[in-house]
Amino acid sequence: MISSRDEVTKMILSAKVLKGIKWADVAREIGLSKEWTTAGCLGQMTFDKKQAEQLGKLFGLSDEAVAWLQVVPQKGSLDTAVPTDPLIYRWYELVNVYGTTIKELIHEEFGDGIMSAIDFSMDIQRENDPKGDRVNVVLSGKFLPYKQY
Amino acid sequence: MISSRDEVTKMILSAKVLKGIKWADVAREIGLSKEWTTAGCLGQMTFDKKQAEQLGKLFGLSDEAVAWLQVVPQKGSLDTAVPTDPLIYRWYELVNVYGTTIKELIHEEFGDGIMSAIDFSMDIQRENDPKGDRVNVVLSGKFLPYKQY
Amino acid sequence: MISSRDEVTKMILSAKVLKGIKWADVAREIGLSKEWTTAGCLGQMTFDKKQAEQLGKLFGLSDEAVAWLQVVPQKGSLDTAVPTDPLIYRWYELVNVYGTTIKELIHEEFGDGIMSAIDFSMDIQRENDPKGDRVNVVLSGKFLPYKQY
Amino acid sequence: MISSRDEVTKMILSAKVLKGIKWADVAREIGLSKEWTTAGCLGQMTFDKKQAEQLGKLFGLSDEAVAWLQVVPQKGSLDTAVPTDPLIYRWYELVNVYGTTIKELIHEEFGDGIMSAIDFSMDIQRENDPKGDRVNVVLSGKFLPYKQY
Amino acid sequence: MISSRDEVTKMILSAKVLKGIKWADVAREIGLSKEWTTAGCLGQMTFDKKQAEQLGKLFGLSDEAVAWLQVVPQKGSLDTAVPTDPLIYRWYELVNVYGTTIKELIHEEFGDGIMSAIDFSMDIQRENDPKGDRVNVVLSGKFLPYKQY
Amino acid sequence: MISSRDEVTKMILSAKVLKGIKWADVAREIGLSKEWTTAGCLGQMTFDKKQAEQLGKLFGLSDEAVAWLQVVPQKGSLDTAVPTDPLIYRWYELVNVYGTTIKELIHEEFGDGIMSAIDFSMDIQRENDPKGDRVNVVLSGKFLPYKQY
Amino acid sequence: MISSRDEVTKMILSAKVLKGIKWADVAREIGLSKEWTTAGCLGQMTFDKKQAEQLGKLFGLSDEAVAWLQVVPQKGSLDTAVPTDPLIYRWYELVNVYGTTIKELIHEEFGDGIMSAIDFSMDIQRENDPKGDRVNVVLSGKFLPYKQY
Amino acid sequence: MISSRDEVTKMILSAKVLKGIKWADVAREIGLSKEWTTAGCLGQMTFDKKQAEQLGKLFGLSDEAVAWLQVVPQKGSLDTAVPTDPLIYRWYELVNVYGTTIKELIHEEFGDGIMSAIDFSMDIQRENDPKGDRVNVVLSGKFLPYKQY
Amino acid sequence: MISSRDEVTKMILSAKVLKGIKWADVAREIGLSKEWTTAGCLGQMTFDKKQAEQLGKLFGLSDEAVAWLQVVPQKGSLDTAVPTDPLIYRWYELVNVYGTTIKELIHEEFGDGIMSAIDFSMDIQRENDPKGDRVNVVLSGKFLPYKQY
Amino acid sequence: MISSRDEVTKMILSAKVLKGIKWADVAREIGLSKEWTTAGCLGQMTFDKKQAEQLGKLFGLSDEAVAWLQVVPQKGSLDTAVPTDPLIYRWYELVNVYGTTIKELIHEEFGDGIMSAIDFSMDIQRENDPKGDRVNVVLSGKFLPYKQY
Repeated sequence: MISSRDEVTKMILSAKVLKGIKWADVAREIGLSKEWTTAGCLGQMTFDKKQAEQLGKLFGLSDEAVAWLQVVPQKGSLDTAVPTDPLIYRWYELVNVYGTTIKELIHEEFGDGIMSAIDFSMDIQRENDPKGDRVNVVLSGKFLPYKQY
Repeated sequence: MISSRDEVTKMILSAKVLKGIKWADVAREIGLSKEWTTAGCLGQMTFDKKQAEQLGKLFGLSDEAVAWLQVVPQKGSLDTAVPTDPLIYRWYELVNVYGTTIKELIHEEFGDGIMSAIDFSMDIQRENDPKGDRVNVVLSGKFLPYKQY
Repeated sequence: MISSRDEVTKMILSAKVLKGIKWADVAREIGLSKEWTTAGCLGQMTFDKKQAEQLGKLFGLSDEAVAWLQVVPQKGSLDTAVPTDPLIYRWYELVNVYGTTIKELIHEEFGDGIMSAIDFSMDIQRENDPKGDRVNVVLSGKFLPYKQY
Repeated sequence: MISSRDEVTKMILSAKVLKGIKWADVAREIGLSKEWTTAGCLGQMTFDKKQAEQLGKLFGLSDEAVAWLQVVPQKGSLDTAVPTDPLIYRWYELVNVYGTTIKELIHEEFGDGIMSAIDFSMDIQRENDPKGDRVNVVLSGKFLPYKQY
Repeated sequence: MISSRDEVTKMILSAKVLKGIKWADVAREIGLSKEWTTAGCLGQMTFDKKQAEQLGKLFGLSDEAVAWLQVVPQKGSLDTAVPTDPLIYRWYELVNVYGTTIKELIHEEFGDGIMSAIDFSMDIQRENDPKGDRVNVVLSGKFLPYKQY
Repeated sequence: MISSRDEVTKMILSAKVLKGIKWADVAREIGLSKEWTTAGCLGQMTFDKKQAEQLGKLFGLSDEAVAWLQVVPQKGSLDTAVPTDPLIYRWYELVNVYGTTIKELIHEEFGDGIMSAIDFSMDIQRENDPKGDRVNVVLSGKFLPYKQY
Repeated sequence: MISSRDEVTKMILSAKVLKGIKWADVAREIGLSKEWTTAGCLGQMTFDKKQAEQLGKLFGLSDEAVAWLQVVPQKGSLDTAVPTDPLIYRWYELVNVYGTTIKELIHEEFGDGIMSAIDFSMDIQRENDPKGDRVNVVLSGKFLPYKQY
Repeated sequence: MISSRDEVTKMILSAKVLKGIKWADVAREIGLSKEWTTAGCLGQMTFDKKQAEQLGKLFGLSDEAVAWLQVVPQKGSLDTAVPTDPLIYRWYELVNVYGTTIKELIHEEFGDGIMSAIDFSMDIQRENDPKGDRVNVVLSGKFLPYKQY
Repeated sequence: MISSRDEVTKMILSAKVLKGIKWADVAREIGLSKEWTTAGCLGQMTFDKKQAEQLGKLFGLSDEAVAWLQVVPQKGSLDTAVPTDPLIYRWYELVNVYGTTIKELIHEEFGDGIMSAIDFSMDIQRENDPKGDRVNVVLSGKFLPYKQY
Repeated sequence: MISSRDEVTKMILSAKVLKGIKWADVAREIGLSKEWTTAGCLGQMTFDKKQAEQLGKLFGLSDEAVAWLQVVPQKGSLDTAVPTDPLIYRWYELVNVYGTTIKELIHEEFGDGIMSAIDFSMDIQRENDPKGDRVNVVLSGKFLPYKQY
């Protein structure tokens, strides 16, 4: 009996390590970006029937697990409000150090509103650099204005 | 008597509103990106003597305030661990929803380590889009590997 | 020297009590809904120049305060993560008790996504009822779907 | 041995996904609104004997689970004080941004007191809109005045 | 300039100590119970015009402070979620130790619902006892049932 | 193997629902008030040998469970510092809204000290009322004075 | 205008440093133990009229401050739930490491109940020791049993 | 497979209740104070081989559990930062109310430094008293001075 | 099925106690420092294939567990934000007491930037001392400067 | 009127920036290490009369401020339990990632006990390195064993 998406995420992680599967290959298989695919496998996004079945085959999941992949999950991947993992913490630190800066600059350009985290995409790439390779991340989110009523 | 950078940040914000100054203009004036400049004016970064004096003129700051702009500040711009402002929260949500995804993909590409938040730059641009303009953000951080010893 | 919108909010609240001004009248004066107007006066929304000047006259604000009303504020009106005021707490309780219900029903109807809190309006009305009058609130928010990429 | 309502909620969720049951159909079956029905199935409300037995048949529950559906549950559906799921968070954000506004307007109309979260109903509907469909929510709660003694 | 009820509470407490006023006398003066009166003076309840003016005379308050006494305050008298003062903590401990007991017994007697904290009164009395006097407190709150819809 | 009182509480709750036992009947059976009895069954109080054995029969507990009922438990029945269940929250709200009032009035009557939560009893009764029945609760706690040394 | 005991505590601390007063001398002057006297001066206990006036002379306090010393204060001397000062933290650590031990041993000796923190005294002494002097603390608190009702 | 000391603590507690063992007897058996012995059995201290084997016999532990008793444990016996159990809370309250007092008096006697919680002993005794027996606790900790360098 | 590194850490700890293995010996076996080796075994670092297999033999791990040792783990070894174990707490206390000092001195020497916790090594040694042996720890971290852009 | 050491710290910081004083020079002046001196100036340590007077001259402090420098301060230099400043956070991260490692290795070498944070010294040095200079920190703390009693 599966009663939450978390259990499916654990099955996927377990199979991934056991079989040595790569996220990039999973993404290619189901025809989506590696960012969306990974987020979905980690329990943050919803797959359609065909994608879920492909994932089921790749990771050796039961039909019940495949059904859960098509259900909107309870989102949020951090264990604590402030993340403890150094890689994830650096992102939290960026929000902490640059948070008010981002706010000021978006408002200066667009007025009052937000950058959507829903109508949103992310692309993570290696950037070769002789002084040490860099992680290059492009975030694109629709601007949503507050409108008076 | 000024005893913390926060007081200087308040002076800058007060002058900015009163005089209607724009961050982009400040950046142009001192010859740095608008992201770094704004972060510095909001108390997160350190200016050199010449930059600090230029800012002093722009915002009408005292010599004491100008001296403080050259001192490394106590960083962190959020009032609470989880930000309450909707624009800043969306960024926290990205870290929350995509945190483990970012971690998995950087590790898959680079191995164990982090994306630096120090050897780092950020570029925020408007992306025109007929379905609604988008905020486009490019983050570039050096990959720093954990090394065995 | 004003260095944050909070100070303007305090000036407005002080004048409101001293002069016995009603939010409904303020709204009528500037031609916006009472919900938006009140939220703006309480430091959550941004007014345009004309509206800000009208508010300046109504509440007897300085030019500097009027300038601040046109600047996007740092949002969030609760002192603590869990509100202590009984009226506001009841709303938090609704989110607590009905949160997963709302999530399930919106997803069942619309698929994965959210109800926008930005492209959003609220209307609060008295509903006469012989068993005791009721507060009737209509919330309307655009559905924003997560899209695969 | 079942020792808390949570266990029954998990059984219901598990059966729902496995059998592809819809909340709207469950509600129709037992003759209650979809909001109340869903909240009850998610462990927030109490069913009477007949309703519980109907749910037992629909979800294939044991007699013990059916007995638990008739017991008043320990309420509260959020894992953390500030919700991490983006859809539920938007509601928390509304309370955060509009909390003091709601308080001011209800007091201006009704005097001191609260909008009941107990003598309360909620109706969630799709509102067709050419610019993108909207979620329309009507909340109705009895006003309860503080009385002097 | 007064911008919150807290400031009026401080004025009242200051005058109370300076003039050696007793809460019981204040209550008698304005014709309300000592519990409601004290709660109001401590910034938790709202007075009508006549009561506020009487309090103004008793405590030597300005007209502005008297106006604030008639405005619904932001409620909540604890500095921290768990109170640190030993007397108040004992009450928190009662809720902690007996919380589930109270819940079970009220539900057993009344079904699902709550004991109102709004349609509510409290009476605190000394109970003489040869083994040491006791504090006797009577709480009376209307039962509010959850109703299906 | 039982290693904490919590496990016994779960056995009791499970048996209670399965057998449809009422707390009032349990109390009558063992000759204690329903408040103390319920608190004990919910893991907050200690029973003597005879009472524990009676409870063992009523709920069908093992000898090991009966032994645990006679051991002083780790007390505290709330899952979180601020309770999420609406009925229990109302009590927390009373402490929050009336906390400083209770403190002031007890000190005014008795001087510095506390109302004991140990030498304490509670009585919960239904109070019939044509406008809606009320929950009537009498709390009685010994006053314990701070003494100088 | 003094509106809380904290302000008087600050006056006392300020005068103490300026005049180089010792707590032991203050205690001798007013005829109480140094533990009670210090706790009182730090805003945790209440003095009678004569003691307060003596303190007023010693520390050069105004009549208003002397009046506040006779009012029961809001207690609790820690800034955070977990103390940051190393000396005070060691005491918190004792409670953390030995908390369950103390509980077990008092219950084994006395049955269910608590050691009073109100009917309580504390004596702190230097204990000479060739391996390094020790701090010797004697705590004495009345045992208060839970009684069935 | 045992993977933490907690599991051994649970085995000990389970055996203690089942066999009706007293801490004082355990202490006598292994020749240590009842305070140290209890703390060790509750997972806060480390036993040597001989003591661990004696405890193994007394509580009927496996060899693996006996091995764990000789491993330095992860210390800290409270579930939450602020304890919820009334007996343990009273100790936290003492630290809260008397914390700054203890700090002032130790510094006045010894200068800057701390009272060690490591080079430390505790003795808990019953003190007969006609007005009600008292818990008498003697704490002895080495004073450790901060030294300049 | 293993679904997180934590499970492998538990297996290692269990085997270590059962077999009486020492960290220093493990480190020698795989040819890394004892600090890195221990951190890796406790689930904070990543081993290469050969090292993981050696550890697998030493601790008797399954192939699946050995595979997990080569996967970058979710880092962070504290259960709570503020550690409760006295040994680990002392390190937190150092950060608390000396945090701003370390910041000032590194900035004074190097300018704005940080000491890396990634390009970092640690060496823990016993330092013999007639007054009591000392723990000597050398930390070495690359200085990473903030650069303007 | 100065009522806490914090106020003196602010005076020192203000003078330091205004006069461009370096910590290393202050240390040389008063003949202590730069680490102790800085910690003392930042309000964490206590100076003797002569040192305090020297600091008074250097920073231009009043006699009252000089007196406060000789009083043991309330220690702890972090604003929040988890530091937000990137440089200080890296140290917290070290405790988080390496905390259990440090614990294991010190216990393996010394048995049960702690590394003192009181009988402790710290030395921060620049280490030249062609791949980028490093911050080299040596920590030395006395090992304090737990002893049975």
